[in-house]
Amino acid sequence: MKSRIEATYRVRGTAETIAARAEAIAVEQSVEMPVGIITDRHVRDEIIGRVEAITEAGEGTFDVRISLSAETVGEDPGQLLNMLFGNTSLHEDVTLYDLELPEALARLFGGPRHGIKGLRARVGADMRALTCSALKPQGLASDELAALAYRLALGELDYIKDDHGLADQAKSPFAERVRACGEAVKRAADETGHPTRYVPSFNGHLDMMRRQAEQSLAAGCDTIMIAPMLAGLSNCLLLAREFPELAMLAHPTMAGAARISPVALLGKLFRLNGSDGVIFPNHGGRFGYSPEMCRRLASSALAPWHGLQGAIPVPAGGMTLDRVPEMLSFYGPDVMLLIGGGLLSAGERLTEETAAFAQAVREYSHDRA
Amino acid sequence: MKSRIEATYRVRGTAETIAARAEAIAVEQSVEMPVGIITDRHVRDEIIGRVEAITEAGEGTFDVRISLSAETVGEDPGQLLNMLFGNTSLHEDVTLYDLELPEALARLFGGPRHGIKGLRARVGADMRALTCSALKPQGLASDELAALAYRLALGELDYIKDDHGLADQAKSPFAERVRACGEAVKRAADETGHPTRYVPSFNGHLDMMRRQAEQSLAAGCDTIMIAPMLAGLSNCLLLAREFPELAMLAHPTMAGAARISPVALLGKLFRLNGSDGVIFPNHGGRFGYSPEMCRRLASSALAPWHGLQGAIPVPAGGMTLDRVPEMLSFYGPDVMLLIGGGLLSAGERLTEETAAFAQAVREYSHDRA
Repeated sequence: MKSRIEATYRVRGTAETIAARAEAIAVEQSVEMPVGIITDRHVRDEIIGRVEAITEAGEGTFDVRISLSAETVGEDPGQLLNMLFGNTSLHEDVTLYDLELPEALARLFGGPRHGIKGLRARVGADMRALTCSALKPQGLASDELAALAYRLALGELDYIKDDHGLADQAKSPFAERVRACGEAVKRAADETGHPTRYVPSFNGHLDMMRRQAEQSLAAGCDTIMIAPMLAGLSNCLLLAREFPELAMLAHPTMAGAARISPVALLGKLFRLNGSDGVIFPNHGGRFGYSPEMCRRLASSALAPWHGLQGAIPVPAGGMTLDRVPEMLSFYGPDVMLLIGGGLLSAGERLTEETAAFAQAVREYSHDRA
Repeated sequence: MKSRIEATYRVRGTAETIAARAEAIAVEQSVEMPVGIITDRHVRDEIIGRVEAITEAGEGTFDVRISLSAETVGEDPGQLLNMLFGNTSLHEDVTLYDLELPEALARLFGGPRHGIKGLRARVGADMRALTCSALKPQGLASDELAALAYRLALGELDYIKDDHGLADQAKSPFAERVRACGEAVKRAADETGHPTRYVPSFNGHLDMMRRQAEQSLAAGCDTIMIAPMLAGLSNCLLLAREFPELAMLAHPTMAGAARISPVALLGKLFRLNGSDGVIFPNHGGRFGYSPEMCRRLASSALAPWHGLQGAIPVPAGGMTLDRVPEMLSFYGPDVMLLIGGGLLSAGERLTEETAAFAQAVREYSHDRA
């Protein structure tokens, strides 16, 4: 059982320089001062970062595993990120590649409150993939977004989320939008019999997000979206604790994934801090993640980890209806497929296209994969 | 007078591909859907991002200037960052290079509440550079940190800040540390007659930071440090509004400066959201910023900008006493010099070394530069 935090950095360097560079990172991420002048035995023995392993990773890079005292984190998620990558994020030759935590710390944070099981239960889904779409574009009025939500919900999607660009803007203020869209989706769900959920997107400071949580609950929502890198991980976890009835989907905006591996940030840190689902750019869409990266990210979000529930992977970013079988074959049933613009492109046939999406997922047999 | 937000991205590309790439970024950072299917006139005319200019920037890169409707931001700093760089932060070929705002938006956020003038007034300094050091290493007990603070304060520094790794840890809980260090620095200030300030470092979620603000005020502190990329910009600005008596120094941890130009993030966005001073890694220290980058960052934090006060540049990161004249010549008097480990290395002679630092800054004549 590990008692220390372990961060693995992928570092550009040479065989001659990497040992010294690894030591410098270990110092930067812990005491951040010349170690020779530290006299305190506890600091020397426990607090200074330790280089545990250095392995070649190809293409002029090395994986440097450094352990840090869990004591340096206390109980705060933001401080965990600070210890894992804070000042080192300012160095161009390093990415945070992976992390591991003591079980006690993982359990303290608690991870997903609802997880895949909770997200399936909300929409009465068996062991199948879930479906999702997005309300766009920003700049529409609340009633126009609600009309769109209604037409999407008639297609019997599982989840309909706000675009992450929808915030608390004059054209569709949060309180007005959540009422209008919540009501529209509820009305469609009553007609179809499928309990489609509307997922409002939170923004702003903690008190704003608390108000948004209250307004979401009042509008009958039980699932919301949050952007952890904008909100701050500490605020995310606090919301998960204060509103245990709300499931949270994490949006990757500002996740700067080129500097932190999505496997570590989305698959582990977002999950750790209460995200029940993690949205990420699927391979072959508008973003540059490789299939291998997507597979590792999904595995990371789902893998057994200190007894935490799994967070459902939500591949997105330019997906289309014709890719549904391929994505289901790739990810298996533990996935939520998110198609936004690809459905909206259907114009007048939006509900029909949406229904085809929902049906394709419901009827896909994972046995044949 | 600009009415739209302008973001400048530095994009890797070729003359053949850059126009299409620029359009794709403009769409990603605004409506995030195929524009051909958008029928709403307001969205088409105002909300879709506009490519305003593309210019070659050398070494296979282009500067792409895109304007966005201020309406998309509403009144929230986190949403501003979301609109400026959110999803595009996931693309490896783009950095956010610069930004410009409508004056109304800048004034709404308000920038530094105290600025350079306020930070000079607190320590009775004329038109000279300010001095600062840091309490380290983490892992020391509160009374040990307080003893260190006392010895630094006897050297008549202007500001003594917590290391950004000091949070709310068992070894030096925030409440205990702020009382002990606040008292120690006050005692030293009474002895020397120089009003040295202790600057505690905030961490955690918004409610924790509010408690830390109350505890800081109770301990006689009027200046604090915050890490905007951990706290969330929205929470930073709210704290600046709720505690107008506290001056805020911004720490760059997790600022991932390789993906957002420090000029834009530290010099503009941190300042915009209430930071009175911005700490950054000086050239020639442990980090890779160039002299040119440091000069541009300092200029950006100080430049006239929509009537906001200037934020004082705080170069740091491995600075030493022998560099003081060079740094003062480089930055002029509108600067706070921060030397941490370089002073702590003096061991038994800590107070004498600190006094030499404070004196070197006080006696430097900017006329000769």
